[in-house]
Amino acid sequence: MNNTRSASSSVSPATPDLLDNHRQSSCGEFSRLEKRMGPRNMTFHSKSMPRGSMFLDQEAFRSSHDKSSLQEEDKEITESLPADRFFDALHGPELETLKEKEKIVLPEDKTWPFLLRFPITSYGMCLGVSSQAIMWKTLATTNAERFLHLTQVVNHVLWWISLVLLVAVSITYLFKTIFFFQAVRREFKHPIRVNFFFAPLISVLFMALGIPHSITSNLPSMLWYFLMAPVLFLEMKIYGQWMSGGQRRLSKVANPTNHLAIIGNFAGALLGASMGLEEGPMFFFAVGLAYYLVLFVTLYQRLPTNETLPKELHPVFFLFVAAPAVASMAWTQLCGSFDLGSRFYYFISLFLYFSLVVRINFFRGFKFSLAWWAYTFPMTAVATATIKYSGEVTGVATQVLSIVMSGAATLMVIGVLVLTVVHAFVKCDLFPNDVAIAISAEQPKQKKWFKQLKNGSFGLKVSDKEDNQIDVEAPPLLNAHTV
Amino acid sequence: MNNTRSASSSVSPATPDLLDNHRQSSCGEFSRLEKRMGPRNMTFHSKSMPRGSMFLDQEAFRSSHDKSSLQEEDKEITESLPADRFFDALHGPELETLKEKEKIVLPEDKTWPFLLRFPITSYGMCLGVSSQAIMWKTLATTNAERFLHLTQVVNHVLWWISLVLLVAVSITYLFKTIFFFQAVRREFKHPIRVNFFFAPLISVLFMALGIPHSITSNLPSMLWYFLMAPVLFLEMKIYGQWMSGGQRRLSKVANPTNHLAIIGNFAGALLGASMGLEEGPMFFFAVGLAYYLVLFVTLYQRLPTNETLPKELHPVFFLFVAAPAVASMAWTQLCGSFDLGSRFYYFISLFLYFSLVVRINFFRGFKFSLAWWAYTFPMTAVATATIKYSGEVTGVATQVLSIVMSGAATLMVIGVLVLTVVHAFVKCDLFPNDVAIAISAEQPKQKKWFKQLKNGSFGLKVSDKEDNQIDVEAPPLLNAHTV
Amino acid sequence: MNNTRSASSSVSPATPDLLDNHRQSSCGEFSRLEKRMGPRNMTFHSKSMPRGSMFLDQEAFRSSHDKSSLQEEDKEITESLPADRFFDALHGPELETLKEKEKIVLPEDKTWPFLLRFPITSYGMCLGVSSQAIMWKTLATTNAERFLHLTQVVNHVLWWISLVLLVAVSITYLFKTIFFFQAVRREFKHPIRVNFFFAPLISVLFMALGIPHSITSNLPSMLWYFLMAPVLFLEMKIYGQWMSGGQRRLSKVANPTNHLAIIGNFAGALLGASMGLEEGPMFFFAVGLAYYLVLFVTLYQRLPTNETLPKELHPVFFLFVAAPAVASMAWTQLCGSFDLGSRFYYFISLFLYFSLVVRINFFRGFKFSLAWWAYTFPMTAVATATIKYSGEVTGVATQVLSIVMSGAATLMVIGVLVLTVVHAFVKCDLFPNDVAIAISAEQPKQKKWFKQLKNGSFGLKVSDKEDNQIDVEAPPLLNAHTV
Repeated sequence: MNNTRSASSSVSPATPDLLDNHRQSSCGEFSRLEKRMGPRNMTFHSKSMPRGSMFLDQEAFRSSHDKSSLQEEDKEITESLPADRFFDALHGPELETLKEKEKIVLPEDKTWPFLLRFPITSYGMCLGVSSQAIMWKTLATTNAERFLHLTQVVNHVLWWISLVLLVAVSITYLFKTIFFFQAVRREFKHPIRVNFFFAPLISVLFMALGIPHSITSNLPSMLWYFLMAPVLFLEMKIYGQWMSGGQRRLSKVANPTNHLAIIGNFAGALLGASMGLEEGPMFFFAVGLAYYLVLFVTLYQRLPTNETLPKELHPVFFLFVAAPAVASMAWTQLCGSFDLGSRFYYFISLFLYFSLVVRINFFRGFKFSLAWWAYTFPMTAVATATIKYSGEVTGVATQVLSIVMSGAATLMVIGVLVLTVVHAFVKCDLFPNDVAIAISAEQPKQKKWFKQLKNGSFGLKVSDKEDNQIDVEAPPLLNAHTV
Repeated sequence: MNNTRSASSSVSPATPDLLDNHRQSSCGEFSRLEKRMGPRNMTFHSKSMPRGSMFLDQEAFRSSHDKSSLQEEDKEITESLPADRFFDALHGPELETLKEKEKIVLPEDKTWPFLLRFPITSYGMCLGVSSQAIMWKTLATTNAERFLHLTQVVNHVLWWISLVLLVAVSITYLFKTIFFFQAVRREFKHPIRVNFFFAPLISVLFMALGIPHSITSNLPSMLWYFLMAPVLFLEMKIYGQWMSGGQRRLSKVANPTNHLAIIGNFAGALLGASMGLEEGPMFFFAVGLAYYLVLFVTLYQRLPTNETLPKELHPVFFLFVAAPAVASMAWTQLCGSFDLGSRFYYFISLFLYFSLVVRINFFRGFKFSLAWWAYTFPMTAVATATIKYSGEVTGVATQVLSIVMSGAATLMVIGVLVLTVVHAFVKCDLFPNDVAIAISAEQPKQKKWFKQLKNGSFGLKVSDKEDNQIDVEAPPLLNAHTV
Repeated sequence: MNNTRSASSSVSPATPDLLDNHRQSSCGEFSRLEKRMGPRNMTFHSKSMPRGSMFLDQEAFRSSHDKSSLQEEDKEITESLPADRFFDALHGPELETLKEKEKIVLPEDKTWPFLLRFPITSYGMCLGVSSQAIMWKTLATTNAERFLHLTQVVNHVLWWISLVLLVAVSITYLFKTIFFFQAVRREFKHPIRVNFFFAPLISVLFMALGIPHSITSNLPSMLWYFLMAPVLFLEMKIYGQWMSGGQRRLSKVANPTNHLAIIGNFAGALLGASMGLEEGPMFFFAVGLAYYLVLFVTLYQRLPTNETLPKELHPVFFLFVAAPAVASMAWTQLCGSFDLGSRFYYFISLFLYFSLVVRINFFRGFKFSLAWWAYTFPMTAVATATIKYSGEVTGVATQVLSIVMSGAATLMVIGVLVLTVVHAFVKCDLFPNDVAIAISAEQPKQKKWFKQLKNGSFGLKVSDKEDNQIDVEAPPLLNAHTV
């Protein structure tokens, strides 16, 4: 019940008040739940929580805790998790599934408060819708597509929807940051999730890019600097982690979601160049391209040390397509024309797009999640680039390509929308318990000798990765010297 | 005897009739051979074999089989081999030598039918000769080289030779596809051989590029689309395999022969641009460059996981030189002038060329194979690029460089030709039994405990990769607790 | 005492005579030392040592040796060390510290002769000072910085200082080559040190670039070919080693010091282009860029096989900044204007610079060495590129950036200078015993079974890399079959 309501609150434009109500109700339920479960369960709370202003929640929260247990449990949650813990405890293409034998610190069999279940990946929806707004704007304003007689109304409608969505998601996530700061911190430490922290920034850039002409055609250039500052800081952190020799080095964490960091650069360059700026956008383009190179090569090599790279093809691979598509548009803006450079990036994205389309088993066997919105926006990006290309290379072929690809992108977004609605209202599992943020700081104790046995360091090997059929009978040689 | 004749049939231009005779005779011999060897030997045959049209061969083939054994053996051969089997069972720079203890499913001590011994690498000859045709065409038509007073006769002669060669090799390989489809399928599954499936496509592109002016100067642009379609499909398959996480991921299969996939792109771009096309060639150039980057970095890193990369320098490394040389010419055609971009690719190929020349021990200690033709065509490519460069940067130095490099390339081709003739007619081993396609689907049974012993999971280690001298004496500590 | 004097001789401009005296005195001391230590100690000497001309040293050297022991010891030192020995015996970001249990072939507790302690990394000083000369020249001649009213005097003074420094260091190192050829050979075999052999070549290029206008504005282009020949040969050797499958393959040796090989290319291209040459500089630029790509990706990936890459950030990482900064200036010269390409490289170096500045703990916890001069010259390079950029994109922002970065670079050089002086005169440890060249050719003998134990191939594992706490108690299963 509660699940359905909370899901709807984030999909449909909800006012902050409504959200508050939901949150409170979830929180209330959760405190009851917690009382039953005893002190070992609910320990996410922020130390920086404002004490006065949010009195009610604060009260509900406080009353639900045995003070003494709270202090003792605090240590367990607030201690920072090293990246390796995430690799050890989770698996799946988004590192979202708990491995067997691992324990989490929140009750597994209960539904957690809505805010705790609201992941940063929800911003994928904003990316999906706002990129559609850009695509329809481009479709309506490109001469080559004039024969379609499209008005800018679709752009207008989509832009407002994405604005409402962005505000709703942001407010919800802001509340999560306030009330469950440790949960947000853990998402930021999560090797895959951290890349989604670029999603809100890219969404805002997309909003600025897709703004209907009737609202404004000239954004103040100050806005650009204001928007790009957090992108710069975040990417300095991420790229720096790749270089430093710790647990987050690139040969370990490389994953298609890393593309989000780079798409931020190209989208920023595109926005800046379309505002008439020169040096700043070129800066972001250059940095983006350098790191894109590193990422492209690394992902293609599929190093065996890439622990987070999904073994099989997965919708996440569509992120491969987005970066060169956006780079193509950005370069066009920077140079003033769709030149060889623009074609270079565009053709790469086109080739990647087709290679994926012919290989991937769409939406089969994979668990739907909100992150899928982020995985489908690249289709919109490459469709938009195709429209721009058809504006340069006019002809029936490019027009057909533009329409087919725009149609495919729109259908895909509608498809994901339907899936989202189904999961939100019918299956009521759009926001499942987010185990990725609740893993225990320590590995569940295993008998030491058992681990060693598994690693093959003892006389008898019981399980083997490469060779599953192993005879238990002791080998002659070993017998020989053990007798 | 039979060996000599079949070899000659592919080197000298042979009519299809002659080839048929050879095949038949080989087949005949082989059926006799098979009768002696019993049911476990010859099981390569195609299920899609036309039943009526090829009556005689069909008969010869059928009569040679005990029907019951055929059905039982069929399973063994037609089952698809995983890439890992090739890595496990073979070694050498072309994965062409059987490892010790491995068994093959065809008789080792007899000469197999000619078609079974005719590998896809034979197309290397077509690459070698047709690239020479292009080089002599360029040499005769470049102003800077006018002082040599070369006519286009050499181009003409070489082009016709390569045409005959291409037709002969193609017909032979077509027969192989018809009669020994499983063998072709296994070549296609072979991690190194699969790259040589680009060789026929590139040969045709080279034929189109080297076509003498007296025949035609204007090829219909339709031809280009027709030629590039298979290149596109094949590279989608190959590049897709690199990306997907299976046994053919790039960090495992990266090998200089992968350059053939990329040379197809650049050669196609060059042909298309020289025909006056723009978008299509640029598409292939962009895709080729992106994957070239990935391949160049990966090969240079020499990851320890690169199972197929030869440990020592080997003629195969000359393929490094070809891609940038062809890219330089393609870029020149795309841009209309030998600009900084063309120089960039050209200088890289020149540097790679000289680094190899000073390091490699030419033709020493390596087993000659038909693939060498493919390894020597890069010399022709870089010589052609040098001639084009000398047309842009005129001067004695560039003229001398052109002549020296063209001479070296021609000498090399003549040298390989001599080697081919010697192996074909004197040593009679140009087409040895192609063990690479006859490996057994299953690893030869080894006592399980022996394998574990080797992997070091048991008490006593007998062989060690890094440390060959191991004292057999049991260590004190082990003694301590075993007594 | 002797230590202090010899250190000062290389920092302050010293005449060859002075150097000779120092060397002799060290040698004398060393021979006395050797007599006490017995025959196992001092065995570095050159077989190609001139017999007549350097009579005195020769005598001193010979007299210190028991002839019979000399011949026997010769074998130990003159035998070439494989790269793996260096990896096995040394650690640290510069592979400069001896691992525990390793022995060296020279007396550890005595100060060796000065020449033996004078490493190739001393050329770092020349790089640091000569790059400052270039920066001050650029600062004085750029219009955008005219408001500073700088004269070219600073450039003049710095240039002469760096000339004297270069001559002094070169003469000293020349003597080392003559008298201790084996030591130089070992430095050349050292996987990190070998990159510093580019330092003298780059220093000379920097000298040519920073030459004051009052001396000459037109260098003969012959000089460029003369200077670039050794760069070309050395880089053919280094890049060739990366590609060949030996112990020096890139996935093993990749280290920020490899940037020196590439900076040589870009600096050469810059010098050549500023002399008006075209093809040669473009050649070096193209080759440099191709290998820079490979290196950049490899270093960023931080492959676990990169044995020499420092685990933590270290001043050596500043070398990341230098290559794109110099590439930016070279490209500007090649193209004739600060175009998009120049910006591309410049912005990358700027981003890398800032990412390092915010992350590195300057000069803390690291042992100072002369190599630091090489690590700080990149700051000067990026400052110079910034000045050139401010000449193109005029404005207060770029002017401020130029001044701040030039100031930072100068301060850094002064800081390192102070550190050098302190280590030379106060701590007297500027030239410590250079253990990196004195490692024994063979690994100290370890009982074989102990090694096997450590590798986990025996029944009981004692130490484990991943799991330090291991209970010694034998596991039940093992007990079961050992009883």
